[in-house]
Amino acid sequence: MKKIFTILVIVLMASGLYAQNYSGKQKDIDIILKNTKSFSAYYMAGDYEKLSGCYTEDGKIFPGGQDIIEGDEKAGNYFRVPEGYKVLKHKVTPQEISVVKKTAYDYGYYEGETQRPDGTISTWKGKYVIVWKKVNGDWKIYLDIWNRVDD
Amino acid sequence: MKKIFTILVIVLMASGLYAQNYSGKQKDIDIILKNTKSFSAYYMAGDYEKLSGCYTEDGKIFPGGQDIIEGDEKAGNYFRVPEGYKVLKHKVTPQEISVVKKTAYDYGYYEGETQRPDGTISTWKGKYVIVWKKVNGDWKIYLDIWNRVDD
Repeated sequence: MKKIFTILVIVLMASGLYAQNYSGKQKDIDIILKNTKSFSAYYMAGDYEKLSGCYTEDGKIFPGGQDIIEGDEKAGNYFRVPEGYKVLKHKVTPQEISVVKKTAYDYGYYEGETQRPDGTISTWKGKYVIVWKKVNGDWKIYLDIWNRVDD
Repeated sequence: MKKIFTILVIVLMASGLYAQNYSGKQKDIDIILKNTKSFSAYYMAGDYEKLSGCYTEDGKIFPGGQDIIEGDEKAGNYFRVPEGYKVLKHKVTPQEISVVKKTAYDYGYYEGETQRPDGTISTWKGKYVIVWKKVNGDWKIYLDIWNRVDD
């Protein structure tokens, strides 16, 4: 009985935590989580066309040190790495996703590894805020801003 | 007649531009714009208590180089400048504000000037994304992330 109670408490706590971090319809949250994973996969694969497809046509990215870049094609191409470099790892860990009608906001941390032409590896991490928009039943990135977390 | 037509076209273009950049009830947009100006005023005045009041209790800021900072008090205190420094200018220029129910997103550029203890002035600018939440009829900053635009 005590064991069942313990399990029940854990389940309630876990679902409470879940409810706190993700708000909106499960279907929408699942698409956003799936698209977040796809973004990382396309980035590691160097598929910039598919990266562009992650953004709304009027999507905007906010890279450090420069002006806002507008448009899905430009956004995807921004992530192009120089010849000889390879993104070995890109992982996004959302802290919260909240869907409000056809808009959602999402924030969290990202981390990754890039291999340089000489074979050495640089690791990096940062934090981000994304505003998503629902487009034809899918969720696309409308605003994408991030900055580094130093070690 | 030609003059009236020209004025009409300008008014229509201007209102179209306005409608494109600000979406939501005028009352909500006005409060967000007012609070944006207040934030700058508090920052220039060094009023960190009022800066804290611009955030929701669970508000989060994303300063460059470090982890996400949570809580209104910590957020406001982050902006504390070192002894002898003075923020002479802080201006925010929103590019778009969109209100969806009790959430809003807002992005744009900021710029400012800081006077150093030796009297010299550093100028800086950047871009930001803010997620606002409506709290008791007022709008507070829930997520606040930015990064620099270099000259």
